[in-house]
Amino acid sequence: MADDSLFEFLHMEIVSHIFNEQQSSKGELDNKDRAACISLLEAMGFRVGQGLIERLTRDTPSFKDELDIMKFICKDFWTKVFRRQVDNLRTNHQGTYVLQDNKFSFLTQFSGGKQYLDQAPKYLAFSCGVVRGALSNLGLESVVTAEVSIMPSCKFQVVIQKL
Amino acid sequence: MADDSLFEFLHMEIVSHIFNEQQSSKGELDNKDRAACISLLEAMGFRVGQGLIERLTRDTPSFKDELDIMKFICKDFWTKVFRRQVDNLRTNHQGTYVLQDNKFSFLTQFSGGKQYLDQAPKYLAFSCGVVRGALSNLGLESVVTAEVSIMPSCKFQVVIQKL
Repeated sequence: MADDSLFEFLHMEIVSHIFNEQQSSKGELDNKDRAACISLLEAMGFRVGQGLIERLTRDTPSFKDELDIMKFICKDFWTKVFRRQVDNLRTNHQGTYVLQDNKFSFLTQFSGGKQYLDQAPKYLAFSCGVVRGALSNLGLESVVTAEVSIMPSCKFQVVIQKL
Repeated sequence: MADDSLFEFLHMEIVSHIFNEQQSSKGELDNKDRAACISLLEAMGFRVGQGLIERLTRDTPSFKDELDIMKFICKDFWTKVFRRQVDNLRTNHQGTYVLQDNKFSFLTQFSGGKQYLDQAPKYLAFSCGVVRGALSNLGLESVVTAEVSIMPSCKFQVVIQKL
């Protein structure tokens, strides 16, 4: 229980540190400054995701295809990292995947509904990076974005970049 | 398992982010710059410790004295946050406590021995802050420092500030 809290509290601290530090150097933040913070958080998540997937797949046999990897991410990876499975995985079979988590663990601290919706992107950037880092280490370069319409439900869109 | 890793990896990222960002604004770091980084990490830990202790003591009866609080920190708090109990608690009964953890969880990623000893303070500042934040919320203002002589064993010194 407190292990989870330890991560959650640290995550909150990081988000606020990064935004405060940007603000203290730039004054009032415009969209470009905010994007810079988000991308910093995403990059941290990316490296964390790479580390996590390396530990998690140590004893896993290799994957047979892209869908097999995505299923692993939705089940095993999600359970270990976000403490539940993805509720729904959809794909167009052309490299786009939508992962729906109806109770995303990093958002459960927020009040439900739409009140803090505009704050959500700050708190999702790290997670998007984690997913992208994990996929990258499994050989899939991707773009990962997240969208919240009602807290704490969250949709991650993964678009695999074909080389 | 991965929950712990999630925290560990994020913690590593923060440490390196804070030092890198100081370096990119100041160039080569001198002792004063390093102290500024350490104190930033310590302050993050402080707020995290405050949050954690609030959750952990929700159902705990109140403490009868200072030693009672220290025992709670060494047993319950340490177990939840650092995943084991403190191995040894000593005190001079005048407000100074030495908490010895022979296998401190944030240091187990390092090779044993003395090789990375000079790196230890970076990775202990956050934890010192966590302890200080927890004590502060329980009504004890303190100064917390950590000392490593052989990895991964670590001694925390807590000096209670009498008001």
